Amino acid sequence: MAIYQATTSAPVNIACIKYWGKRDTKLILPTNSSLSVTLDQDHLRSTTTSRADPSFKKDTLWLNGKEEVIKEGGRMATCIAELKRLRKELVEDKNPDAPKLSTFALHISSFNNFPTAAGLASSASGFAALVSSIATLYTLPCDASALSLIARQGSGSACRSLFGGYVAWEQGTSPTGEDSYAIQIAPQSHWPDIHALICVVSDDKKGTSSTSGMQRTVETSPLLQHRIKHVVPQRMADISKAILDRDFDTFAKITMADSNQFHAVALDTEPPIFYMNDVSKAIIALIVEYNRVAVLKTSKVKAAYTYDAGPNAVIYTPKENVKEIQKEAFKDVFGIFGAQGVQGAVVDGFNEAVAKPFDIGAVKGLIHTKVGDGPRVLGEEEALLDPDGIPKTLA
Amino acid sequence: MAIYQATTSAPVNIACIKYWGKRDTKLILPTNSSLSVTLDQDHLRSTTTSRADPSFKKDTLWLNGKEEVIKEGGRMATCIAELKRLRKELVEDKNPDAPKLSTFALHISSFNNFPTAAGLASSASGFAALVSSIATLYTLPCDASALSLIARQGSGSACRSLFGGYVAWEQGTSPTGEDSYAIQIAPQSHWPDIHALICVVSDDKKGTSSTSGMQRTVETSPLLQHRIKHVVPQRMADISKAILDRDFDTFAKITMADSNQFHAVALDTEPPIFYMNDVSKAIIALIVEYNRVAVLKTSKVKAAYTYDAGPNAVIYTPKENVKEIQKEAFKDVFGIFGAQGVQGAVVDGFNEAVAKPFDIGAVKGLIHTKVGDGPRVLGEEEALLDPDGIPKTLA
Repeated sequence: MAIYQATTSAPVNIACIKYWGKRDTKLILPTNSSLSVTLDQDHLRSTTTSRADPSFKKDTLWLNGKEEVIKEGGRMATCIAELKRLRKELVEDKNPDAPKLSTFALHISSFNNFPTAAGLASSASGFAALVSSIATLYTLPCDASALSLIARQGSGSACRSLFGGYVAWEQGTSPTGEDSYAIQIAPQSHWPDIHALICVVSDDKKGTSSTSGMQRTVETSPLLQHRIKHVVPQRMADISKAILDRDFDTFAKITMADSNQFHAVALDTEPPIFYMNDVSKAIIALIVEYNRVAVLKTSKVKAAYTYDAGPNAVIYTPKENVKEIQKEAFKDVFGIFGAQGVQGAVVDGFNEAVAKPFDIGAVKGLIHTKVGDGPRVLGEEEALLDPDGIPKTLA
Repeated sequence: MAIYQATTSAPVNIACIKYWGKRDTKLILPTNSSLSVTLDQDHLRSTTTSRADPSFKKDTLWLNGKEEVIKEGGRMATCIAELKRLRKELVEDKNPDAPKLSTFALHISSFNNFPTAAGLASSASGFAALVSSIATLYTLPCDASALSLIARQGSGSACRSLFGGYVAWEQGTSPTGEDSYAIQIAPQSHWPDIHALICVVSDDKKGTSSTSGMQRTVETSPLLQHRIKHVVPQRMADISKAILDRDFDTFAKITMADSNQFHAVALDTEPPIFYMNDVSKAIIALIVEYNRVAVLKTSKVKAAYTYDAGPNAVIYTPKENVKEIQKEAFKDVFGIFGAQGVQGAVVDGFNEAVAKPFDIGAVKGLIHTKVGDGPRVLGEEEALLDPDGIPKTLA
């Protein structure tokens, strides 16, 4: 008997223009467009195997090997139903010979290769992997933008993980959401040497979830409307041009300004929402000082920080600066590489006063990655389901 | 020979609607109106003695016993010159018998009764005491609003310390600044039971000065213009009405929202400005939780936090809640009263999880004060200059 199964992986993305606020919470339609860099799946990825079989009793999902309830009417169920509808309409109704996979239940096993403790949101890569895996299984004749419409209904920012490179999520205007999808501004190959340093910052507090936080901002922040109407549209145009021009200076300045503004509208919320802590702020001070010295020498900045709904920093920088930043910011100041005996500033003119050493452990770790490609279809040997359609035991 | 000398004291004020941004940096004309509560001089005050004498060689200022340079063309010199001009025009030119004090040099001794380390801005009370002391010496026929025009040129928020009670600084529209002065919304006697708890938060970093910080915000924050044009005018009207109605719930909500928004536009600045630290944020979380419980029981909040350009919290609350807040927030959580053996929540329903104990010393001290009156003329026995016009040695 035929086995209908597909395995794909999908990347994490980190936004430069932040998504914060929904105009429709059910369809996940945003109040503003956003733009992100897709990160390399060789380092961070979600992998999903989907199988359709007439013997399966019900749609079942395992996340990191543990079965998760698929809530009726919830986001996961919406994505699965939408993919089944497309299978029927675009494949089975047009080709009577096509197996009726839309009528079979699905077994889905998904795995993130980064620990939850890293504080990286897994919903974007997770929903992107889920959608691309089922779309591959169903042989849907849909491009990535069309699939992004479905992933968006799982988790807004997941729509951007359907592409590699530099990706915009156009907010759209339609009440049905049909024009709220992701497009690629430029592929990874256009500007491949943008690297990212993810600084995992220790935090013992559970912050406000982004889902509830962004709606409180929509409801209570007087500043958000100004951001939406008068700030983001110009920034989207400017940063898209900067990407096409490979203009890191402009790209970095807009990225930092938009991170700041996202956290500003979070603070303007009632009650206020704080995602950055004192360690996050110390990393900003380091990057500001690092850029100040760079501007004196070359009139251009060399790095951009950005923060999502948590204390972790992501630092974008051209490849050539990575070693310098790793040493300056993280070995000397945060001591995260331990006693490896490196001393003194490697950046001439760097004001050491802004780089007061922190306690060991304030930054738990550094992940070095770079811009990467979009979802990948993987071979049978990487499948996460065993021949019986049950998650493989991972050693 | 006659001694021409006057001694006054002036209060600290803490804004509920924040002043942040100048449209004229020389005249100190603000980009938005602001509103504050004047605090009781019995607890916090600046005291100034001014003497005019033909034997004095030059205008000389001692601050806390130490001589300070009066910079030519600087803010101090501007205030003194303006007061001398008014002495001549309004007194000497009209009454030929009046001694020509405007032609004599001044000796000025000023003293703050709170330590610099407390992190409380002394420029507001300091300039208010200076202006009121010289105005008293010069017997100027000027009301407090007229004097506030002069104090404003010393330090913007000083203009609000010329009044007791609840005080607005009207931004004005004239390029000369003639309509940018303080007015009293309500005297202390109108609503005397508003108390203030000043939480002195430890901070080893020197933050951005408010003078340079606010101009960077004017130059770089896209959100500030929206705040100025579309948010502050309504908040000024609403909080003024709340004060006249003694409506603490509305007063508190606007005060907290405006503190948040001031820090939001500081964060929206390039590079971003942070004044609150993790301890400041923990105090906000405590007050938010304290109010959440209060709203469940009475539909009204019981306390309002506000933060100026530093990590210290000021908590406004009606008198009846002071003991409860002192215990809940500061004895149990911050331990600042040491091991006095008080245990357990005194507020039913308070979620202790938000009140994780901090290290002893995170909050260095608590100052309990309340709304107070405006500048006071003091007797000879409180003068800060000795018979020779030199600062008295303070034991």
